[in-house]
Amino acid sequence: MVFYLFLVLITNTDSLSEFLASAVDAACKAGEIIRKGFYQTKNVQHKGLVDLVTETDQACEDLIFTHLKQLYSTHKFIGEETTAAGGNAELTDEPTWIVDPLDGTTNFVHGFPFVCVSIGLTIGKVPTVGVVYNPIINELFTGIRGKGAFLNGNPIKVSSQTELMSALLVTEVGTKRDKLTIDACTNRINSLLFKVRSLRMTGSCALNLCGIACGRLDVCFELGFGGPWDVAGGAVIVREAGGVIFDPSGADFDITSQRVAASNPFLKDALVDVLHQIV
Amino acid sequence: MVFYLFLVLITNTDSLSEFLASAVDAACKAGEIIRKGFYQTKNVQHKGLVDLVTETDQACEDLIFTHLKQLYSTHKFIGEETTAAGGNAELTDEPTWIVDPLDGTTNFVHGFPFVCVSIGLTIGKVPTVGVVYNPIINELFTGIRGKGAFLNGNPIKVSSQTELMSALLVTEVGTKRDKLTIDACTNRINSLLFKVRSLRMTGSCALNLCGIACGRLDVCFELGFGGPWDVAGGAVIVREAGGVIFDPSGADFDITSQRVAASNPFLKDALVDVLHQIV
Repeated sequence: MVFYLFLVLITNTDSLSEFLASAVDAACKAGEIIRKGFYQTKNVQHKGLVDLVTETDQACEDLIFTHLKQLYSTHKFIGEETTAAGGNAELTDEPTWIVDPLDGTTNFVHGFPFVCVSIGLTIGKVPTVGVVYNPIINELFTGIRGKGAFLNGNPIKVSSQTELMSALLVTEVGTKRDKLTIDACTNRINSLLFKVRSLRMTGSCALNLCGIACGRLDVCFELGFGGPWDVAGGAVIVREAGGVIFDPSGADFDITSQRVAASNPFLKDALVDVLHQIV
Repeated sequence: MVFYLFLVLITNTDSLSEFLASAVDAACKAGEIIRKGFYQTKNVQHKGLVDLVTETDQACEDLIFTHLKQLYSTHKFIGEETTAAGGNAELTDEPTWIVDPLDGTTNFVHGFPFVCVSIGLTIGKVPTVGVVYNPIINELFTGIRGKGAFLNGNPIKVSSQTELMSALLVTEVGTKRDKLTIDACTNRINSLLFKVRSLRMTGSCALNLCGIACGRLDVCFELGFGGPWDVAGGAVIVREAGGVIFDPSGADFDITSQRVAASNPFLKDALVDVLHQIV
């Protein structure tokens, strides 16, 4: 009962608007660091064979955490870099900021302009506030549960496409390079190419979700990405834009599962049907 | 002899600079039409199962052709839409403007911001002047043979990456949906994923070439795209940025072959080696 009173208290619109404003502030400040670093030589380290991290990732996470912890000292925090360094990534019902300081690190290293800061706030494990900011193309996606989704302040909505054969699909090849994973990945692509209009790969899971939210892309899925930080911000934005976010099997979306799919409401079943045989 | 005198006369730097300025003018005017149309509902027609064309494609080609024909009435012209309507697409040694009025039509229809105008001028069949303009992200790539390549007026060069395993690859799935083509496409992707850092698909052949030119992308190839209009502008820009453009088999680039690969000079052999077994 105390917990529910707490939720009611904390999720009133004023608080959520304030949380969003704080997240936007943090994202814009981190975005400045990304923008400066984007045009410079990077100091790159490998997390895996093809999985990269830079000083900018860490600097942005430090900045965002410092900013938000000063304002919300009782909240919980999960960040990609902190988790990689052994930090706690357990998601509880408490208000939790889930941060990818630089989604699309490979793009950042190469100078390909699909990079973003992703900040999501979950309350009761439900994505409630989301900010995804691409400082290179200068696109700021925002969403508050129950209050709509926006791109640079303008309302956005998912596409109205109803036929999978006319849909633009986005997916990614991930960072695993074992034969089983690669074969499964290209088998899925093979099956889907007979069923969709075309395929895009941008290298940013969070921006792919925002692409669904603003209707540029119709269907997306990704398996085996980094963690909840890739989807926590985008999940709110997709839902508030009228979209659906779900497990590629058709089951409910689980923010901790490293599996995600999203689309407008009309295309979910058709996408799940195609993936059903192969996921 | 008369022909060579003509070539010498016409290819002096002043003329080429003037041709470039005219092409930039035409591209910017077409870009305005694309920008306006980008945010509106489109009247879409199918050229194939998943190959689209819009009124904007035709309007832009008309505008570009009218603009350039007024200035250069003795030049030849090849355009994607004119060719699709049965126009002559034979490439001769004469100065020839090769135009894709809207590369990335599928992106345009969906509102995915990788769209561009591509204008190339060949002289003696050699790509000599190139303009590729993305009016949504506001990036103007230009090149004149022997005079360098530029992005929004700033010199660009290809990446310095020497290892294929650290390279960012871009390719496309094309518009053919028969089993043979799709299987070959995903087989290539499968083989390459063991050899490169990651894979992008943008939906614009001309912008992929410009991505190579400015070093955002390291290697690209595409088989079975529309025609010389997809590569005529980008070819100059890649070469002038220090890159190489070639047939995916490693043979010389043939602008009429609907096959292209490009990279910095260090990665060509490694890419061709991987593709050799599968192209």
